[in-house]
Amino acid sequence: MPPLKRRSDCPIYLALQIIGDQWTLLIIRDFVFSDYRHFNQLVKTEGIATNILQSRLNRLLEHSIIFKGQDPTNASAIRYSLTKKGIELLPILLQVYRWGANHLPKTNADEEMHQRTNDQMEQLISEISERLALTHRQV
Amino acid sequence: MPPLKRRSDCPIYLALQIIGDQWTLLIIRDFVFSDYRHFNQLVKTEGIATNILQSRLNRLLEHSIIFKGQDPTNASAIRYSLTKKGIELLPILLQVYRWGANHLPKTNADEEMHQRTNDQMEQLISEISERLALTHRQV
Repeated sequence: MPPLKRRSDCPIYLALQIIGDQWTLLIIRDFVFSDYRHFNQLVKTEGIATNILQSRLNRLLEHSIIFKGQDPTNASAIRYSLTKKGIELLPILLQVYRWGANHLPKTNADEEMHQRTNDQMEQLISEISERLALTHRQV
Repeated sequence: MPPLKRRSDCPIYLALQIIGDQWTLLIIRDFVFSDYRHFNQLVKTEGIATNILQSRLNRLLEHSIIFKGQDPTNASAIRYSLTKKGIELLPILLQVYRWGANHLPKTNADEEMHQRTNDQMEQLISEISERLALTHRQV
């Protein structure tokens, strides 16, 4: 993908150039909540096309939001992991969850998770971040 | 715009169907930080095309994230305002700001604002939400 023209230095604009599309945060969601770390797991994401998935993974790699390595349980498979920069997308993801669960009709939001995004957001972010720091650490 | 096919009931997926694109949160940003409420102000947003801006505003209207009314200082002008549902996008916006300012090179993030997104996020959200509730209230 050619680099996009930088139209401003606004941190929101620049962040959205990387994560502001329909798919990227869904891929991050699948890393976080389903522990999907392989291409053939991630491709199940709401019917994402394989070329779109590959282009989004490449962008995330390029921006050091994820890194790839050998799967320890299968040396011939590639496993993706979140970097610290990637794990720090979690507050955005959880605020999107909260907003969707609070405001959109007929979501399948988990009741406890939804309540915690409203009442214990900081604690929830810490707990999940700690888990991710262990399961995605760079070896 | 035809309604998109609903591929899952996940609150993150459903929220991103509405706000997961390059422009929508930038438009919300301009409502929040620049008090841009008119089409001809919003069209300055990082070179957004007028047809894209109109389609995004229509989607935000359709989902009751914004509403439109007469500008009180100019009866022939239309002014857009955020609803409560729209104001509650603020935590997402501020987390995107924080992530961008923390992780991306050469942003023009305001130093105080950036620090507050890291240290006083809850208080920052409350302060800005209160201001928006006054300036965007439905009359």
